[in-house]
Parts: sequence; structure tokens; C-alpha cells
Amino acid sequence: ATAAAAQDISTGLDHFYLIYAGALVFFMQLGFAMLCAGSIRAKNVKNVLLWNLMDSCGGGLAFWVTGYAFAYGGEDDSPTWTFIGYKNFFLMGDDVNLSYWFFQFAFACAVSSIVAGTIAERTQMKGYLFYSLFLVGFVYPVVAHAFWSTNGFLANTNAEPLWNSGAIDFAGSGPVHMLGGVTALMAAIVLGPRLGRFHDDDGQILEVPNDIPGHSTPLAILGTFALWFGWYGFNPGSTFSASTAVAGEVAALVAVNTTLAAAAGAISAMFTSTYFNYRIEGVHTYDVAYTMNGLLTGLVAITAPCASVDSWAAVVIGIVAGWAYLAGSKLLVKLRIDDAVDAIPVHLVGGMWGLIAAGLFSTPELLEKAYGQSEHVGWFYEWGRGSGNFTLIGTQLIGILFIFGWTTAIMYPFFWLLNVFGSLRVDPMEEHAGMDISRHNGSGYIIEKQDKLLDASTSL
Amino acid sequence: ATAAAAQDISTGLDHFYLIYAGALVFFMQLGFAMLCAGSIRAKNVKNVLLWNLMDSCGGGLAFWVTGYAFAYGGEDDSPTWTFIGYKNFFLMGDDVNLSYWFFQFAFACAVSSIVAGTIAERTQMKGYLFYSLFLVGFVYPVVAHAFWSTNGFLANTNAEPLWNSGAIDFAGSGPVHMLGGVTALMAAIVLGPRLGRFHDDDGQILEVPNDIPGHSTPLAILGTFALWFGWYGFNPGSTFSASTAVAGEVAALVAVNTTLAAAAGAISAMFTSTYFNYRIEGVHTYDVAYTMNGLLTGLVAITAPCASVDSWAAVVIGIVAGWAYLAGSKLLVKLRIDDAVDAIPVHLVGGMWGLIAAGLFSTPELLEKAYGQSEHVGWFYEWGRGSGNFTLIGTQLIGILFIFGWTTAIMYPFFWLLNVFGSLRVDPMEEHAGMDISRHNGSGYIIEKQDKLLDASTSL
Amino acid sequence: ATAAAAQDISTGLDHFYLIYAGALVFFMQLGFAMLCAGSIRAKNVKNVLLWNLMDSCGGGLAFWVTGYAFAYGGEDDSPTWTFIGYKNFFLMGDDVNLSYWFFQFAFACAVSSIVAGTIAERTQMKGYLFYSLFLVGFVYPVVAHAFWSTNGFLANTNAEPLWNSGAIDFAGSGPVHMLGGVTALMAAIVLGPRLGRFHDDDGQILEVPNDIPGHSTPLAILGTFALWFGWYGFNPGSTFSASTAVAGEVAALVAVNTTLAAAAGAISAMFTSTYFNYRIEGVHTYDVAYTMNGLLTGLVAITAPCASVDSWAAVVIGIVAGWAYLAGSKLLVKLRIDDAVDAIPVHLVGGMWGLIAAGLFSTPELLEKAYGQSEHVGWFYEWGRGSGNFTLIGTQLIGILFIFGWTTAIMYPFFWLLNVFGSLRVDPMEEHAGMDISRHNGSGYIIEKQDKLLDASTSL
Repeated sequence: ATAAAAQDISTGLDHFYLIYAGALVFFMQLGFAMLCAGSIRAKNVKNVLLWNLMDSCGGGLAFWVTGYAFAYGGEDDSPTWTFIGYKNFFLMGDDVNLSYWFFQFAFACAVSSIVAGTIAERTQMKGYLFYSLFLVGFVYPVVAHAFWSTNGFLANTNAEPLWNSGAIDFAGSGPVHMLGGVTALMAAIVLGPRLGRFHDDDGQILEVPNDIPGHSTPLAILGTFALWFGWYGFNPGSTFSASTAVAGEVAALVAVNTTLAAAAGAISAMFTSTYFNYRIEGVHTYDVAYTMNGLLTGLVAITAPCASVDSWAAVVIGIVAGWAYLAGSKLLVKLRIDDAVDAIPVHLVGGMWGLIAAGLFSTPELLEKAYGQSEHVGWFYEWGRGSGNFTLIGTQLIGILFIFGWTTAIMYPFFWLLNVFGSLRVDPMEEHAGMDISRHNGSGYIIEKQDKLLDASTSL
Repeated sequence: ATAAAAQDISTGLDHFYLIYAGALVFFMQLGFAMLCAGSIRAKNVKNVLLWNLMDSCGGGLAFWVTGYAFAYGGEDDSPTWTFIGYKNFFLMGDDVNLSYWFFQFAFACAVSSIVAGTIAERTQMKGYLFYSLFLVGFVYPVVAHAFWSTNGFLANTNAEPLWNSGAIDFAGSGPVHMLGGVTALMAAIVLGPRLGRFHDDDGQILEVPNDIPGHSTPLAILGTFALWFGWYGFNPGSTFSASTAVAGEVAALVAVNTTLAAAAGAISAMFTSTYFNYRIEGVHTYDVAYTMNGLLTGLVAITAPCASVDSWAAVVIGIVAGWAYLAGSKLLVKLRIDDAVDAIPVHLVGGMWGLIAAGLFSTPELLEKAYGQSEHVGWFYEWGRGSGNFTLIGTQLIGILFIFGWTTAIMYPFFWLLNVFGSLRVDPMEEHAGMDISRHNGSGYIIEKQDKLLDASTSL
Repeated sequence: ATAAAAQDISTGLDHFYLIYAGALVFFMQLGFAMLCAGSIRAKNVKNVLLWNLMDSCGGGLAFWVTGYAFAYGGEDDSPTWTFIGYKNFFLMGDDVNLSYWFFQFAFACAVSSIVAGTIAERTQMKGYLFYSLFLVGFVYPVVAHAFWSTNGFLANTNAEPLWNSGAIDFAGSGPVHMLGGVTALMAAIVLGPRLGRFHDDDGQILEVPNDIPGHSTPLAILGTFALWFGWYGFNPGSTFSASTAVAGEVAALVAVNTTLAAAAGAISAMFTSTYFNYRIEGVHTYDVAYTMNGLLTGLVAITAPCASVDSWAAVVIGIVAGWAYLAGSKLLVKLRIDDAVDAIPVHLVGGMWGLIAAGLFSTPELLEKAYGQSEHVGWFYEWGRGSGNFTLIGTQLIGILFIFGWTTAIMYPFFWLLNVFGSLRVDPMEEHAGMDISRHNGSGYIIEKQDKLLDASTSL
């Protein structure tokens, strides 16, 4: 009787845990929306906020219709590898754990929101809706299936995982962030830069690219804190359970590592950019946008290895993430690829680094605890075993190649076709005016000047 | 010994669950505050933010003094129907589950905040405080008692519920949202429209009403996301327990349905308004305010049926909610009732639709699971039983009539009296100037222009 | 077997509870950031937001390196009193409960953020980073050790607590808030007031000090709600467990008391300031900043006694907190100490009042329940026992003296030295221009005026 009672409590508790964690992951949508809105110009603020709403709304419906089914539908314990799931479309069937669906829905919407920032200020609503539904309903589920379904070819939960190892990606540096980042890159290449970013009015390339700073730092930082907060659902929630000591201890380690990598990423990006700026300009300035993006890159990077690395490694991963972000950001400018919020260096570069880091720093003890297997461990620990075996790091690289290959192969043609059919980029006149006026019935900020008592010189 | 251990854990877990859910519901106060503030003019932003603070503060104290006692004090398992509770004023007595109180407090404050938006920009602080305390301390508790106390005449938890059925309102489409919406309607009728909304300076009716858009879309969307997030406490939390498999599974279904109805409401309102606008103006525009309010109406509508309908029904309920919102919003304008944030169509219309939807779509299996009874089920499922019995839908309609009757009968005279005694509407001069200057020591936004180094043309 | 199962669930649940509560406490960083940003001038908004990011980032690393070790490292069940912990630097060792670390990390960062607001608009980044790391890495841990480590000289968890009682501070009115407030006071004294606050351009003292209102009330209220929300992790989370009935019931009481004290503090500060203003100016005005700070002072004050007082006492504590805040705020102005966001009256005065209140209102029953001891109880209840014994209130006063003594002794010289070495205050030219332009690559708000279609008179 009491064993049944314990089972009853455990089941209830695990539902609670996933609903809680899913709610926090959902909160990241608020974070993405505010980060995006603050990081672009005021004239497109309504547009980008509506996109972010649509990521949750359209994305939510797309994940209900096909997304969940393609990612996890019909998975079983057999060693079979499948490309895609095939059951539970429209949540049909009684075999779906609904709190798991809810948690996964929130994950799926994050993928789409990652892209929103990059392509802001020049993309049509129509084009946005098309790719957002496509991404959440099909492209992401295929990768989630590969990494996380028991029938995925990269899944370490498969009965016979790849190379007897499978890839280590605890909460989605790869399937969520890197996939979002690669999609953003494809979109940015096809779309081209915003008017005035790299070219003057005559189309000549500017010697010094024109920075287009965001219109509100408070909104951007609000978004950053909200994302960080939500990440405490994203990463620890990926234990899917809180009803055992092991699950709780893994979740606790994950929370600690998430914290340290975020902190280290911010510190690393801030001081590094301060140092380089000091060498050029001779004055100490501290850049808020770099700091914030370094922080986010640290979070992205720790997402894969968070359950299998020690806290010192989380700090190292964060520090390198800060550098990787800065390097990626500079490279994009050099390549004249315009990313309105620097989401590509954050999510693509950070996600890739996260997958690699899991292949380098994962310890035998923690792998055993979190995944129940430690035949193949992080490369640095393979050294400790005197082997230098490349299996785990190799699997991680396969994961990177798979994400990169799949996403470019499907999204580049997709954006290219959208563009050919005139559904991707807004016309230049609209871009100049801003889309809030052209497409959303007026500016996102309205100031009344009609009242005589309101002293216009002192009040906003 | 271990049965006691299981009981000990369950009790602790359920407290945690209610504290967690209550905190999320409380977070909706942040959402209401930001939604309201963003949806009105900048000159009244401090005023409306202070109101929202007072909903939690005054409301919290009112719920402590009388609200909880009237709603739930002294309820028992007898079949007796009572009008009102009579114990636990000031939380006196040792028989109150304090985490339940906390969760219910957060619910109660939401009622008051719903009204704040509608009557913004023209109501006196004094009048606001009076009605807010009255609503949370007395008017709402009576309705909460009727629906949710075991001695309520509409409660399905009563030992002998109405028509052997009782009303189905899982988390408050009726007692919270519809009640708030009806109160807002009464207030808006007595108050009259804002200056310049439907009349010109000479008091002549304008042919085309004057839209008064909110001053900050980012704040409004921030509030919308915050409300959506908080709803994951509001709805799933209404299981009051997470320590059994059944409770967990019901909560999970609730989270999924809440998500889908919100998404469908947003999509429905957005595309419908885009379609009609396209037919008139020939250009595709996507209205952010309509989308956001459609989303919220979807949330309001799913609140009653969230535990007893399938996911496809949640989508249908959301789609209809989007249309119902648009229709309600147009109707209000036609009737020249001025609702500064469109809270009436969202909460009154959405709440009413939610109660009806529970009477149409509730399935036997889910009613059995969530409520332990399925003698009377949703009308569409009565058909399936070959009966077409009207009992459940009938009970729901009684619930609607009760809320409408009780609230109008008590709140219309209340606002009318406030108005007669000059405590409701601010004077026109104050309304023109904005209340931040007249009553709150200055504007809510301050910009310095004194610094020479600050280029006024490029910096806010 | 099932006893082990129950233990397994409990452990998992308690980790979940601490991760949840820690995430909510972390959310307070968002609150502090927005409250600070909204309460200062627009020209320093990036600067203060970056500080708040650094409180979490630098603070997080400092707590990892030394903070946790000094506060809790190596504590045991012996009656020994120690000054400081000595183990678990860099989280080394396998004996750290990681979810406890995570929860405590979030606490530690709050201390630093309290100070940020007070010294805003005139402090160098360098100076900020120095004191922030020093505070989180050393100064706060010493006080946390004294109150909360089992080897602390004030800890009621010590095997032989001070005067057989130890101090009652459930969640940190003292070690977190009062310590932060005293540090802020030391900094404000050494720094001096902002230019133009108490003196004219020639350095003559102004007869009427110059108010410098914050630039955005919505941001400040957003921050206030976020802090209140986070406090539901801060206070209830300090049970450290949710897996027993007692822990759950204590947490529930804490949530209720936290709510009521916040509400009472806001109401008390608002109506009191309205009353005094009415006597002077003859018009009813309602000050948003006073209300918000009264609310926060109520929260600070209830933090120590929240687990050991009845709900009516929470209301009384909140009301007095509102008055104490107003008095403290006026006193600071009289002493010409410039606190940019009034954090000193909120946290120092509120924290001190909280420690005293715990010594006055703690009931025998609740002390027994929450702390397992009731030999010495709140002074008013000592009366009830016919004793009037001063032991508990005396211990609380020792706690206040210790915090005040330790913090002033170490932080005043620290700030004084920073100042001597020119690392504390920015130069006047920079202060006039604002630090966003001088140190952070431009204003925090950017408005484009280039687009002809954008009507500058109606759009922000």
C-alpha cells in the first residue's frame, strides 16, 4: 500500500516539476520579447513584439499539430533509429505525458524566438509566420528526435546508442540554440543587411559599418534577466523528474553550473571588450550589450554540459563563451552579415561551443550519475584514463555537423524561395518608415503634447 | 510508520504547490500593472500603477479582514447552501490552511485589477479605493462562496449539488473574470467616457470615435506575457494539490489547454481583424492590441473548462474567444461605453463564454477524473449519450445569471452613489492635465535637458 | 524499502524546493535592476543596469570562490563558535548541498544590489566592482556565519546558543538587508551627495534640497512587483525544506505574513505621507515612490519575524515599517546624506525594525514550530508569562549592534581608502554628462529622428 502511495506522490511531484519548469521556460518568451524589443529601433518595436507573441501562439499550435508527433511520437525502447516520430498529432492518443508535452512546447517556441532578433527590422510578417511554423512544426522536431527521442540516432537513451555513447546535450545547446542560430544565419544571408548598416544611400560599401544601437537598454536588460531566470527551468527542468535523490542532485548541480557559466560569460566578455577598447581609445569603457550577450552565450554554452561537468569547468566554459561571442560578433561584421541583436554569435557559436565542451569536460562520475553510463567520457578525462579516446568528442562533432547540415540544407532553400516569391523582405520605403507605422497601425510609443499644463521640456 | 511518512511528504508538497501557484498568480499583478500602464496615456501612468499596487495591498488587507471569511469561513461537508461564510475574519482560528489562503488572496486581488484598466484616466483615487476594498472584501467573496465553497449553491463540491450537478468553473472564468468584467461595465456606464473619446470639445457626438491608443506597446506586451505566465499558476494551481497522480495529470492537462486556448485566441483575433481591415483598406495590417486581447480572452475563456475538455476543444474555445472579443469590443464602441484597455470584452465576454464552453465541451472521462462525477456532462457529449440533456449547460447559465444579477444589483448602485457624492470622476481640468501631475507629484517619466553634452536630438 | 522510497522522494523534493526558491530570489535581481534604473536619471541608466548585472555575475563568482566557504564551509554540530567558515572554497569537496549553495548565492547577490541604488549616478565602475566583490566574498559571509551557520555565535541552531536563545532572523532582515543598508550608508557618507542635490553650483547649501526624481515610474513599479514576487522565494524558501507537514505549514505562514506586512507597509506610508502633505498643501496627493518604498520596508521588516509571528502582528510590523521608512527618509535629507533610491531607510531602518520586531512579537507556539525551542520568546509574550524577561529582545539587539559594528568598522575604511586612491567618485564633468555617455558608449535610450514619415510631434 505504501509503495503505491510513494508512487502516487512521485507521479504528482514529477508533473508539478515539469509544469513548473515549463512555466519558467515559457517565461523566456517574455525575455526574448523584451531583449529583442530593446535591441532594435523604436520604429519596429510593435512588429518585433508581435513576432514574439506569434512564436508562442503559432509555435504552440504548430507543436500541437505536428511538432510533438515528429519529435517524440511513438518512440519505444527498441534500438531502432528513426528519422522522425509518427504518432500523437493533435495530441491524439492517451499515451502522452501532458506535462512533458508542455515542457517541450516551451522549448520549441524558444527556437523560433532566437531567429526573430537577427532578422528584425526588415522581414515581412508573412515570411516570419511561414518560417516560424515550419521551424517549430518540422525542422526542430527532427533534430530534437535525433538527440532526445529514444529512437534518435544521436540519443544516449537509445538502447544501442551511436558508438556505444550517443551525444551529450542535456538541455539543448544543439537542438535548440545552435539550430536557432544556424537558421538565423541562413535568414540573415538571404535577407541581406538593413539599409544603412553596411552601405550608404548609393549602395557603396561603408568603410566603417554603421552601428545601429537598440533603442532601450532597460528593456534589453529586463529581457536578459528574464532569460537567465527562465534558464533555471530550461536546464534543471531537463531532469524531467524531481522525485528521487539523484534527480534532485543532478538538478542542483545544473542550477549551480548554469549560474557560474552565465556569470563567467558576462565577466569575460565585459573585461575583454574593455581591454581591447582601452588599447585603441585609451579610456576604460564598459559595454552593456557585449556584457549581456557574453552572459547569454555562457548560458547557451553550459546548456549541453550542465549535468556532467564540475563547477570549475562551468566557469571555464563561460569564460571561453565570452570570447567566442566577441569573436563571432566581429566575424559577422567582417562578413557584412547583419544580425540586429547578435543572436547568431550567441546561439550558433555558443551552442557549438556547448556541444564541444560537453565532449571535453564531462566527468565519469557525473556522466554515470546523470546518464547512467560512463564508458566514454570527456576528452580531458579520457587522458586521465590514459586513453585519449575520441568517441565522445567525436559524437559531439557528429551532432554539430548534423545540425549544421540539416538546418542549412532545409532552411537556406526555404528562405531563398520565400525571397524569390517576394515574401521575405519588406520594401525599402517601409523599412525606412519602420513597420509599426506601415503594418501595425502606428508607433509603439505615443506621446501626447496636447495638454497645456504638461511642460513639454521636462516631461516625456 | 511509512504511511505517516507519505502523509507528511504529501502535506509538505501540497503547501509548496499552493505557495508556488499563489506566487505565480500574484505575479499577474505585475502583468495587470504593466498592461494597464502601457495601454493608457503617459500622463496617467503613475496613477494607474498606484491603483495596481493598491489592488494587492488594500485588497490583501481586505481579504484578510473579511474576504476569506465571507468566501470560505466555516464551510462544512453538509448539503446546506449558505449565502456567505462566517468565520476566520482576520485569519482568526487555527483551522485555516494558510497556503490555501495565500492562493485565494492572489485570486481575489486579480478581480480588482481587472476593473482598474477600464476606468483608468478619469476616476478619483478615493473612488478607486472604496470600490476596490468593497469588491475584494465582500462582492467577490459572495460569488466565490457560491461556486467554490462546499456550501455554495452552485458548487459541485456540495454534498447535494444543484440539479445533482453544480456548476463547472475550474479556476474562475465566472467568479473572477466575469465578475470583474461586469463590475468594469457598471463603472464605465456610470463614469462616462473619457473627454474627447466620443464627443468633441462642445459635447457633440463625434461621427468617428477618437481612438486613444496606449503610450507604450512594450509595457503592454510585457504585461501580457506576465499574465500568461501567471495563468500557469492560476489554472493548474486550482487542483490545490500535486501529491497524487490524478492531481498531477489534471494539472498537466490544464497547463496544455491553457496554452492552446491562449494561442488560438491570439491567432483568431489577429487574422480576423487583419481580414476585415484588408477588406476595408486593402492592406494587410496586424494589430498588436487586438492580438494581445484575443490572447487574454482565450485565457479567460479556458479558465472554467480547462480541466474537463480535450485539447482540440481548447483550440476551438480559443478561436471563438478571439471572435467574441472582437465583437464585444466593437459593440462597446457602438454603445459609446469607454473602456480604456478593453477589459470588458476580455473578461466579461471571455468569462461568459468560458462558463458556456464548460457546459458544451466537458467530457465524461475528464469530468470523472477532475471532479469525480459525470452524471451530467457537456451538451455535445450528452448528444453522444443520445440524451441532449440540458442540466450542465443549464447550471452554467444559472451561474452566468447569478454573477450578472448579483454584480449589477450591488455595483451599479454603489458606483452611482459614489458619483452622486462626487467621489468617482475627476474634474475635467484634472482629466486634461493628467492625474500624475495633479495628484501624484509629477509626471511618471522625467527627462533631463540640462546637460549640454547630451544631444537632445538623438537621446531620449 | 518504502521508508527508503519516502527518503528518496523527500530528498528530491527538497532539492526542487530550494532550486525553485533560489530562482525566485534570483528574480529579485531583475527587480533591483528595474527599481534602480527607474529611480535614477536617464543619463545613468546603462551604468546602473550594468552594476546590477555585475552583482549577479561578479557576486556569483565571489560567492563561489570564497563567500560560501566563509559563511558555511565546514560547519558542524558542536557548540563551538567560530568567526568564519574554512572549507568548500571553489565548491571543492563533496559535502556541499548544491541546491543550498544556489539558494544562498541568490541571497548573497541581493546584499550587493541593495547598495547599488544608494550610490548611483556618482560612483566609478572600478569602485563598484571592488566593493561588490568584497561584500559578497567576505563581509556578508561573516555575518551570515554568525546568524545562520551552526557555529555562529548568534545562531539559534548552535548546540549551545547565546543565552540559551540565539537570534531569530528567519530570512535575513539583519544579515542581508540591514548589512546592505549600513554599507550603503557608509558609502553615501564617504561619497557625498550628487551635484545639485543639496548644494548650488557655487557649493552653497540650498535652503530647500533639490529633489531628483527617477526617470521612469513604470520601471520602478515593475521592479517593486518583481521584488515582492521574489520575496515569496526569499522568505518561504528559508525553511530549506518542503517535504514535511511542519515545513510546509511554516512556509505557508511565512507567505501569508510576507503578504500582509508588504500590504500594510504600503498603505501606512501612502496615507501617512498623504496626510502630512494635506496638512501642508491642503490637497490630497498620493506619492508613488513613498508607497513603493513603504511596501519594500514592510517586506524587509517581516523577513526576520515571518515564521514566528501571528498575522495581526505582521500587519502591525508593516504599519510601523511604513512610518519608520518615512522617518528615516526625512532624517537622511536633514543630515544631507544623498541616497539616490532611498535604499538606506528601506533596508537599514527596515532591517533593524525587523530584528527588533522578532524580539517583540514572536509567539511561543510558532517559535516551537519553526525553531523547536521556546524558552525565550517575544517580549510581549514574556509579559504573558508574567516575566518580562529580556533575553530574546536582548539577543536581537546584540545582533543589531554586531551588524552595525562589523559593517561600519570594515566598510567605512574600505570606502575611505577607495576614495583616497581616487577609485570611488567620478569627476564632476562626467557626473554632469552622465556615465552612459562617458563610460558605456552612449545613451541608454536612442530615438531616431531621421525618418520623414515619422511624425516627431506624436511619436516618441
